[in-house]
Parts: sequence; C-alpha cells; structure tokens
Amino acid sequence: MKTPLDFYFDFSSPYGYLASHKIEALAARHGRTVKWRPMLLGAAFKATGAAPLPLIPLKGDYAKRDFERSARFHGVQFRIPEPFPVSTVPACRAFYWLSDEKQQVTLAKALYRAYFVDNINIGEPENVIKVAASVGARPDINDQAVKDRTRAEVEAAIAKGVFGSPYIVVDGEPFWGIDRFDQIERWLKGPF
Amino acid sequence: MKTPLDFYFDFSSPYGYLASHKIEALAARHGRTVKWRPMLLGAAFKATGAAPLPLIPLKGDYAKRDFERSARFHGVQFRIPEPFPVSTVPACRAFYWLSDEKQQVTLAKALYRAYFVDNINIGEPENVIKVAASVGARPDINDQAVKDRTRAEVEAAIAKGVFGSPYIVVDGEPFWGIDRFDQIERWLKGPF
Repeated sequence: MKTPLDFYFDFSSPYGYLASHKIEALAARHGRTVKWRPMLLGAAFKATGAAPLPLIPLKGDYAKRDFERSARFHGVQFRIPEPFPVSTVPACRAFYWLSDEKQQVTLAKALYRAYFVDNINIGEPENVIKVAASVGARPDINDQAVKDRTRAEVEAAIAKGVFGSPYIVVDGEPFWGIDRFDQIERWLKGPF
Repeated sequence: MKTPLDFYFDFSSPYGYLASHKIEALAARHGRTVKWRPMLLGAAFKATGAAPLPLIPLKGDYAKRDFERSARFHGVQFRIPEPFPVSTVPACRAFYWLSDEKQQVTLAKALYRAYFVDNINIGEPENVIKVAASVGARPDINDQAVKDRTRAEVEAAIAKGVFGSPYIVVDGEPFWGIDRFDQIERWLKGPF
C-alpha cells in the first residue's frame, strides 16, 4: 500500500488553489491518493517572518501578474478576489469539523471555488457556512473541539516544516509550490 | 529582429546558476538571444525586505534541499559553497568592466562555475581577479567608472521591478525563477 501524498494548503493561496486542480490527477497517475491538509499561512508566516505576497514591494505586483498568468498556463478558471488575502480560520475550522475525508475534499473544492471564481469572501464565517451548506455540510465552527483540532493540525504542519502553500510531502520528501509538480512527477517514478 | 531575453541574475544565487545552464538553449529554440544582466540581490532585498534564503527559519532548510534536488533534476553539477551566500559586488563589477558581450558571458559562466562547482569564494576580490585571468580578462574592479556603471545597472534593474534571481524579461513580460522556464517556453510561442 503506497502512502498518500500530504497536500498542505491555505484557503487564501492562489497557488494552493491551482494545485488543488492538479494534485489528484498527478497522484492517480502513480497509483497514489491525496491527504488534504489545510493549514494557516498566517501562522507559518510568524515562524518565517514572511508577509502576504500582495503587500511586498516589487514582488507584490509581480505576484498578481503571475497568479493570473499561472492560472491561464494551467488552464484553471481564476480571478483575484476582493478582498485578498483573507483570514482562513473559519474555512479551516469548517474543514476539520468534518471527519469524512470525501466530504472534506468536497468542501475544500467548494470553498476554493467560492473564493477564487465566485469572489465570495470566505474570510467571513457566515459565507463559509453558506458554502458548506451548498455541499450538504453544517459545520459548527465555534465548537471548542474543532478550534482545538484546527490549532493542533496547524501546529503539526509547522512542526513538519510547512511554511508555504501548496506544500506537498511525498514519502518524507517536501516540495513547495505548484512549480515543483514537475519534480514531484519524477520523484513518484523514483527518488532522484 | 526579435529582441533578446533579458536575463537578470545574482552571482550568489543557486537558481540563477541553474538558469545560466538553460537559458541560452531556451532562447535559441525560439530564435532569440540572451542579454546577461548581473545584479545585486542584496540591493533588491532592501526594497522587498527579503533575506537570504538560508537565514530564514523553515524555508532555509527547505531551500538547501531544494537547491541540490533542483540541480539533480536539471542535470547541472552543483554543490552548496562555503561560505554561502557571499557579496557579489566584486563579481558584478568585473562583469561590467568588460564591454564585449561574449567576454562578459564567458566570465559570468567562469564565476558561476568557480563558486558552485569549485567552491571558490567569489566574494573575495582576489578570487574574482584570478577567475577573470583564467578566461583572459584583467578587470580593474576598483575603477570608479565601473563602480558607477555597476550601481547604475543595479538601480536600473530594481527600477524595472527585478526583485529576485533569476528574473527574465521577454518582450516586457517578467518571469521570476527557473521554475517559470515552462511558462517562458510557451510565451515565446506567443503570449497566453
């Protein structure tokens, strides 16, 4: 039994969103599955001293252009939402409130689509609840247990070295960015 | 006459080094040439607030692993030099002291090889002079004119938005990173 690919991502990350369209097919080509693991980029940024891309001089302007060009390159529908970025705490908690993996993935895709296609502000808890309802889920994101679980998942991710989105771990080997999918593809044929 | 690709890079940048092995063939496949434009990443980092990768928590450990894996992926001989990174002011000045483009490129490749293959500290002016001598160049890196020209080139790069290495501009379209070479390849067939 081959181990699944660990797919770490933040719900406000354009590159994470693009990766979400590609990762399952990538894994399937090599007989693998994907374990979706949303995390909070803001918490990772505290560890690395990074800031959201749009706020960085020079790099911010480039990033907006690269988000849109990369979406066209990968053939994925995309618009830069307004506001951007947003807090992804409510989205993350909604995901971890669910225990069924299939439901989790369905919700993750719906949240990404809401934000990056339909321009719905998923930083607002009520919008997360609406998106969840649209796929048949009724998460209680104020539940203490789900708050604790979300925090634990994010801390575990950072403890494993996750500092960006998307961040994919294949049999212990870490890959940061959708632009490492070419290396992941080769790695899945055998470490190089 | 098609315009050349503007290839901005820093002499202490592993990804710039890897790109230096790939960019001429990439350009040639599309009937283009390459204008080599060394810059000083340290100056760009002042504008963006960035720090050298190895110094960043979490990201630094990943970066070292990714440098080596990316070199293997691209089939380029590479080792992480010691010390790393180093000041690239002497290397940059030696490059701009030359006026012949072919000589400039020969020197650039020799400096990159010295640092990332032979572990020669090109942060030391005397080592830059030795590497230059090995390709028949005798730059005067203390010459005021070359200091001024280097400063002007670096300022011009930052004014154009260059914040990283490698950074390639194709007919006005900017691409950051060797991991955008796939997008550059497609762009050269026609903007998308």
